[in-house]
Amino acid sequence: MSTPTITEKLLTAKKAKGITFADLEKLLQRDEVWIAAVFYRQASASHEEARKIVSILGLEAELAESLIECPLKGSLEQTIPTDPLIYRFYEIMQVYGMPIKAIIHEKFGDGIMSAIDFTLDIEKEEDPKGDRVKIIMSGKFLPYKKW
Amino acid sequence: MSTPTITEKLLTAKKAKGITFADLEKLLQRDEVWIAAVFYRQASASHEEARKIVSILGLEAELAESLIECPLKGSLEQTIPTDPLIYRFYEIMQVYGMPIKAIIHEKFGDGIMSAIDFTLDIEKEEDPKGDRVKIIMSGKFLPYKKW
Amino acid sequence: MSTPTITEKLLTAKKAKGITFADLEKLLQRDEVWIAAVFYRQASASHEEARKIVSILGLEAELAESLIECPLKGSLEQTIPTDPLIYRFYEIMQVYGMPIKAIIHEKFGDGIMSAIDFTLDIEKEEDPKGDRVKIIMSGKFLPYKKW
Amino acid sequence: MSTPTITEKLLTAKKAKGITFADLEKLLQRDEVWIAAVFYRQASASHEEARKIVSILGLEAELAESLIECPLKGSLEQTIPTDPLIYRFYEIMQVYGMPIKAIIHEKFGDGIMSAIDFTLDIEKEEDPKGDRVKIIMSGKFLPYKKW
Amino acid sequence: MSTPTITEKLLTAKKAKGITFADLEKLLQRDEVWIAAVFYRQASASHEEARKIVSILGLEAELAESLIECPLKGSLEQTIPTDPLIYRFYEIMQVYGMPIKAIIHEKFGDGIMSAIDFTLDIEKEEDPKGDRVKIIMSGKFLPYKKW
Amino acid sequence: MSTPTITEKLLTAKKAKGITFADLEKLLQRDEVWIAAVFYRQASASHEEARKIVSILGLEAELAESLIECPLKGSLEQTIPTDPLIYRFYEIMQVYGMPIKAIIHEKFGDGIMSAIDFTLDIEKEEDPKGDRVKIIMSGKFLPYKKW
Amino acid sequence: MSTPTITEKLLTAKKAKGITFADLEKLLQRDEVWIAAVFYRQASASHEEARKIVSILGLEAELAESLIECPLKGSLEQTIPTDPLIYRFYEIMQVYGMPIKAIIHEKFGDGIMSAIDFTLDIEKEEDPKGDRVKIIMSGKFLPYKKW
Amino acid sequence: MSTPTITEKLLTAKKAKGITFADLEKLLQRDEVWIAAVFYRQASASHEEARKIVSILGLEAELAESLIECPLKGSLEQTIPTDPLIYRFYEIMQVYGMPIKAIIHEKFGDGIMSAIDFTLDIEKEEDPKGDRVKIIMSGKFLPYKKW
Amino acid sequence: MSTPTITEKLLTAKKAKGITFADLEKLLQRDEVWIAAVFYRQASASHEEARKIVSILGLEAELAESLIECPLKGSLEQTIPTDPLIYRFYEIMQVYGMPIKAIIHEKFGDGIMSAIDFTLDIEKEEDPKGDRVKIIMSGKFLPYKKW
Amino acid sequence: MSTPTITEKLLTAKKAKGITFADLEKLLQRDEVWIAAVFYRQASASHEEARKIVSILGLEAELAESLIECPLKGSLEQTIPTDPLIYRFYEIMQVYGMPIKAIIHEKFGDGIMSAIDFTLDIEKEEDPKGDRVKIIMSGKFLPYKKW
Repeated sequence: MSTPTITEKLLTAKKAKGITFADLEKLLQRDEVWIAAVFYRQASASHEEARKIVSILGLEAELAESLIECPLKGSLEQTIPTDPLIYRFYEIMQVYGMPIKAIIHEKFGDGIMSAIDFTLDIEKEEDPKGDRVKIIMSGKFLPYKKW
Repeated sequence: MSTPTITEKLLTAKKAKGITFADLEKLLQRDEVWIAAVFYRQASASHEEARKIVSILGLEAELAESLIECPLKGSLEQTIPTDPLIYRFYEIMQVYGMPIKAIIHEKFGDGIMSAIDFTLDIEKEEDPKGDRVKIIMSGKFLPYKKW
Repeated sequence: MSTPTITEKLLTAKKAKGITFADLEKLLQRDEVWIAAVFYRQASASHEEARKIVSILGLEAELAESLIECPLKGSLEQTIPTDPLIYRFYEIMQVYGMPIKAIIHEKFGDGIMSAIDFTLDIEKEEDPKGDRVKIIMSGKFLPYKKW
Repeated sequence: MSTPTITEKLLTAKKAKGITFADLEKLLQRDEVWIAAVFYRQASASHEEARKIVSILGLEAELAESLIECPLKGSLEQTIPTDPLIYRFYEIMQVYGMPIKAIIHEKFGDGIMSAIDFTLDIEKEEDPKGDRVKIIMSGKFLPYKKW
Repeated sequence: MSTPTITEKLLTAKKAKGITFADLEKLLQRDEVWIAAVFYRQASASHEEARKIVSILGLEAELAESLIECPLKGSLEQTIPTDPLIYRFYEIMQVYGMPIKAIIHEKFGDGIMSAIDFTLDIEKEEDPKGDRVKIIMSGKFLPYKKW
Repeated sequence: MSTPTITEKLLTAKKAKGITFADLEKLLQRDEVWIAAVFYRQASASHEEARKIVSILGLEAELAESLIECPLKGSLEQTIPTDPLIYRFYEIMQVYGMPIKAIIHEKFGDGIMSAIDFTLDIEKEEDPKGDRVKIIMSGKFLPYKKW
Repeated sequence: MSTPTITEKLLTAKKAKGITFADLEKLLQRDEVWIAAVFYRQASASHEEARKIVSILGLEAELAESLIECPLKGSLEQTIPTDPLIYRFYEIMQVYGMPIKAIIHEKFGDGIMSAIDFTLDIEKEEDPKGDRVKIIMSGKFLPYKKW
Repeated sequence: MSTPTITEKLLTAKKAKGITFADLEKLLQRDEVWIAAVFYRQASASHEEARKIVSILGLEAELAESLIECPLKGSLEQTIPTDPLIYRFYEIMQVYGMPIKAIIHEKFGDGIMSAIDFTLDIEKEEDPKGDRVKIIMSGKFLPYKKW
Repeated sequence: MSTPTITEKLLTAKKAKGITFADLEKLLQRDEVWIAAVFYRQASASHEEARKIVSILGLEAELAESLIECPLKGSLEQTIPTDPLIYRFYEIMQVYGMPIKAIIHEKFGDGIMSAIDFTLDIEKEEDPKGDRVKIIMSGKFLPYKKW
Repeated sequence: MSTPTITEKLLTAKKAKGITFADLEKLLQRDEVWIAAVFYRQASASHEEARKIVSILGLEAELAESLIECPLKGSLEQTIPTDPLIYRFYEIMQVYGMPIKAIIHEKFGDGIMSAIDFTLDIEKEEDPKGDRVKIIMSGKFLPYKKW
């Protein structure tokens, strides 16, 4: 089954059942962002997790198989994404990329923040001047190896 | 004066004085990421802030002028940046971009996280299994206007 | 249902009924440009609006569902669009982009014109030397936040 | 003299004299956007206009020559501009490009809005919820010729 | 109906009937290049013209509808076209583009040759050393407006 | 000497002397477009022609050498040129490229119009509704060889 | 019929019959490279040649029609081809392109080698140290026309 | 010394001395194409060869050093070269690339023609209908290894 | 049969049978990486090898045919691949590409490492601090030929 | 000091002293590939290492400073590198990228090979049929975190 087909099946069932990602977070004891990443085939679930997702959504058991495989990752089709919500993160890196690099090197030395040993949370901050989106990333610092 | 020249002057003076961005944060009462953004000419300082930066670094007063102007923004030369530290953020969006979009729409409706009414902090989380880089973004949610 | 399919269904029904976007503007009490944006799945309608559009066009009620979802935005396939009417706006930015930036900064300071808290109107100006297309954009000015 | 050199000379002199584009609009009886376009060498001035600009800014008379020539136009270096203020106009076309095309064709038939027989004005709309940038474009409609 | 489908239907019928574009020129009293542009959905016909084309080619009357609509223009898929016949015109602009610009500015001042109020003819010049292709373009000169 | 330096020297001298390309056409007995192509180093002159150009413009004799060499051709820096006058020719090919191919094949068979055994003339057509730019291209038809 | 469909039909039939391009060269009295170019729809056959190819391969007579039409040429999908065999020719031009240009200009003057009045042969040179591929290209020299 | 500087020094000296690549072929006992490749720093000479080239052209002995180093290869700046002479080779591969691949596989099996164990010769074939450029490439066939 | 179809058939059968590439390595006496390359149609098998693969996986005998043909190579769709596992190899070349070139030239002289007479092995190194992926490439050194 | 300037200084001094990277490996007790990476500013040395390199090469002490800083990484200018030696590694990934992904996932599960906790060695394997380049990469396996 192709990745877009799997994603569409999951999203359609989720909508039909009226379940939110926040509901799934409680049922699966996994963060909603990670669960959404499984939906878009950017993360691979365990047998147990796959079985649960499929059963909660009332989908055929065979679909669980597809959620276990190591996916070919990359969920955006375009080099520069056109969707305004997603583009803002690219703009943030254009504007704050070099400053972030400077600060991380000053705090940690030569290396990178891992995007694999990594978590990402999204919170809604209520604010009378307009609610705010809060995004918290946490990645292990990996120092460059010398040999 | 060209942007790279200004940036180099500031970084060289900062290094010679042995001052860190964390020191500047205390002296200027502004976040270190924002100050680094001024260094890379991605943010514009007030007259007072510019004067202070230049004086702390022992640079000529005229340089302050350049830090006040509205810059032409974009600190990365390449479409897909080659530096591994910066690239990881592009990879994060390739992998988690669509999941982030799905979660934000579920929590807030149709709109975006502002990259203008926006702050970004970097913290070092000590961890026996390897320190972690924590990045906190906070942007106002802007709902699409109908008319 | 894919975005092009939805758009085609709506456009075909609109043509068959002989309804113009100007007619829809009156019936829906929303600007014709915004309504066309809903047709091209660049804007999301409320339940009420979606129901009305579908009913005016005599289409199946289920289609309304698709008009409510937050769409993946971006209606042009190519990096540099080939259609002459659309390309002219790219040319306008190539020629007047930097001047516009200079004028906005002079009038407002460092920040941007929002493309989210934003409206766009198109008017026909009759002129004996040839009618003119008038386009009025209005976007909230967003000053860069310091932190 | 290269285009960036001319632009920089004009902008530096304008800043030193403390003159705004709005001042130049009054002195030259030309719109400030068009004058900024001359500064960025996207428009060519008449002998009289060039002489006046140079004299107001206290620059050498020879510079006037450079403002009269037909320039090689295009003020943005990158295919997709990284500056957030300018990028928003590209985003507007990604989101509203096809809707604009649909409305113009409905109102005028097959043709385009001229970007040559064209004017662009920028106004500041004061608003208690945040000032707004208003941009008014007016271009002659050019119908496709048949032959 | 998609653009390639319309084009293929028209070309197949034209071939089956053994009609040339030159024949259509006589029957429609429109230039053969313009008629070919209608076939490739780069130009929109009037009701009368569409009806005639469809009837001459013996195609279903409904097809005429598709020839009247304002098309999304651009008949070449690639940025740099690979077909040698079409590429030669790109090469001509690479080699003679700046010279053409210089000559037009010298003869007309700052402005452009319209590609909308525009005609293009192709003639065969018999020549004992090898026949020649003659292409005559005629476009209205549009001077840049000042405001 | 680099190509832009040669071109600038020639254009500056031509302007200082008040000579037009039309004047040079008469003096050199070569078409003004071809002469402009020599100025932009897209065509190579004979010793005699190079000597004449340099002498008419009152430039140093050594410059003539540079006009004789076979140049590395291509006068436009960008893949898609941003200058509106030059871009129109790209648009013409986007819109009329496939129709032109269809007509040439119908008249001549499989082959191309040569861009080497090729001439291009530009004429000004006076017209009360606005002067027109007329461009006449003539290229030898080259049939594909079979072997 | 689409170009890939035609090509696949021809290649499948050729394989089923166990016929090589070398066999076809003898049967058609045309070079095997040119015949392969007809298979990939990069060259157009005469009625007689098309009929023969189709009959030798035991395919339906109507297919012959498709081999006669002037094709839209360009057999490689990617700007930089990924197939190692084809890429080597791009590498040869990256490494030897400027040297080839220098030698041809020295031998012939300003002009090009035609890719239309052109033949290409491939021979196998047996060699104890490893067989060699020999490719012989022959194209008419076309001198640039002056006018 | 940068690659363009070395190349220009060599070409200028060669022109001043009135020496052709054909002359150098005789003096160095190496093919003229290979020698031109050394000039453009696409091939590395031995100490002896470098010394000879420099001495024949009357250049400083130190330049010889630069001709011995392994160069960073690739003599064309653009992805798709704009020079018509060089472009024709790209067009040849667009048109005949797949046919060449088919023929080589039929004659040799799965593998490639080496671009390293490779020679290229250019000959002038006199022809009353117009001289022809003959290019002979010879590369070792390298079969894919299995392991 | 298209390449993705063949690959999917093979992978699905392999999964259904519960066979690993390591199992196939033992059964076929070929390296698992090479076998995976056959699955992705990047390498061509012998008749014997193809027959065995198809029979082990319990697939139809005709599929063996497709594994013997010389494939059009290149298994990654994007210029810069988005999958993090594959991208790391691109990053390795961005960071260590020039150093590798310097070391190979120092050890071997001017030439390349063959990617055809080439093998690649992947081993798992158990390590208490985290297992390591070991990749061993071995390619014949090919010195540049002079002629 | 710019990166290319630093690299050139180091390479020139190394050549003048007649020192190889293999010599530096012994003197510094670091692998030659890592040392070459420091030369190309892709890796940062410790104070001690930088001091040693500069002193062995007889360069000014201040240069050591530049070798300690965290560099902006990426040593190849082009998206697709044109140098044949470097390109082969891109080709290896085009051909073996998906097979490598399949094997690593089979052996390790979902995750990547680190390019940071990573070493790379180059060895010369003498072979009577032609010496071979052996490249050994070793990177820590990083499993995707769930959260």
